[in-house]
Amino acid sequence: MKRARVAYSGAIHEATPHGDQLKLADGRVVREDQVVWLPPFEVGTIIALGLNYADHAKELAFGAQEEPLVFLKGPGSVVGHRAVTRRPKDVKFMHYECELAVVIGKAGRNIPRSDAMAHVAGYTVANDYAIRDYLENWYRPNLRVKNRDGGTVLGPWFVDAEDIGPTVHLPLRTLVNGKVTQQGNTRDFVFDIPYLIEYLSAFMRLQPGDVILTGTPEGVVDVQPGDEVTCEIDGVGRLVNTIASDEAFGR
Amino acid sequence: MKRARVAYSGAIHEATPHGDQLKLADGRVVREDQVVWLPPFEVGTIIALGLNYADHAKELAFGAQEEPLVFLKGPGSVVGHRAVTRRPKDVKFMHYECELAVVIGKAGRNIPRSDAMAHVAGYTVANDYAIRDYLENWYRPNLRVKNRDGGTVLGPWFVDAEDIGPTVHLPLRTLVNGKVTQQGNTRDFVFDIPYLIEYLSAFMRLQPGDVILTGTPEGVVDVQPGDEVTCEIDGVGRLVNTIASDEAFGR
Repeated sequence: MKRARVAYSGAIHEATPHGDQLKLADGRVVREDQVVWLPPFEVGTIIALGLNYADHAKELAFGAQEEPLVFLKGPGSVVGHRAVTRRPKDVKFMHYECELAVVIGKAGRNIPRSDAMAHVAGYTVANDYAIRDYLENWYRPNLRVKNRDGGTVLGPWFVDAEDIGPTVHLPLRTLVNGKVTQQGNTRDFVFDIPYLIEYLSAFMRLQPGDVILTGTPEGVVDVQPGDEVTCEIDGVGRLVNTIASDEAFGR
Repeated sequence: MKRARVAYSGAIHEATPHGDQLKLADGRVVREDQVVWLPPFEVGTIIALGLNYADHAKELAFGAQEEPLVFLKGPGSVVGHRAVTRRPKDVKFMHYECELAVVIGKAGRNIPRSDAMAHVAGYTVANDYAIRDYLENWYRPNLRVKNRDGGTVLGPWFVDAEDIGPTVHLPLRTLVNGKVTQQGNTRDFVFDIPYLIEYLSAFMRLQPGDVILTGTPEGVVDVQPGDEVTCEIDGVGRLVNTIASDEAFGR
């Protein structure tokens, strides 16, 4: 099952697809342009992977890694589908990163690889924006690179894990203004989902709502104000947002 | 004014000091051993500083830095006063870090240094535990070092900014089992509070409840199961917690 969280008529609703419209949990059917899309689940700790596709690591001229490069993103950076993300005027290179977001549904510590998938509630699409200017080296995915307001776009749908099944081999791609600029497949993860859950839960308890952004494949390009950026993952969703200048953003 | 958040008799209460007891917001007076202390404010984004005292940077054999070393901690790592923090049995060196925690009270972006203190609601004491084994270099304060369960202890009191005043020169110290092991003064920050607020708000909106852990001075030593660790900051509070082994922790 697919579901979204949307704001409509003064309240937050769960919504499911209904043709090209949305059906709210109370039965009302509304158009997409009548709602504000929110992140499709209550977001806990946001864990992000750097360089989890070999081709993208090569693209950034980094070598292979022996363990996952993990970092956190803050709750203030999160927005939903159709949000606007600001490109600061003082930067040279800002890129999208289309990523499968794995949402934890069952708490656990020391989860063995063999049990890991039972802790996954479902998936959504993430666009994990980065300001390349501040990416000094792969040891320092720091706040200025990754923790901008609107720098973590999540949605539109939360898709139940059972709809995807135990083997997560999903084609994904990014389109900038309708033109494909990035393509990959989650089967090419350096560290797969069971590995990541085993690795992380060995030192921190994973909790429902915690989310793992699994990294992005090759093909990140600079985006400019006015660009519409679409991150698609087959079977999961099509996450759209637009880039605004400081001025157009309005503050 | 000083206030705590405590759980007592099935609910969460604001509490103020009342001799050696606590007075709940509803007027009841209770003993400390009748409550569970919680972090004294609703915690938003947790921003932590590495190496923000020159003596501690030297202690870890790192040189001076040109800009703040900032990283995030996750909400799952936070516990309150009197909590137990686990020392995993497979590590060689786990140290406390006594830190002044600066709590944001007023949202803002691009906050100039001159206005920064008006965005501070107040302060509490933080103990920002680290597992030294995984501290590879100062570019990588990664999750295994810093984001353990119980690795961010906050409390006991939230102290209003006006009680501290505009100049934040506060002696601080850590005691392990009653013996002083770490001493410093927040006047020795490499980057002071107005600088940090200006720096951070230049690329991310600061929001009420966001908290800046301002780094720790020289004097971090290994702690072992059974140790009682007390982080004190004059005028702010005395934060106590204990270290447990995996077995004593109970899971």
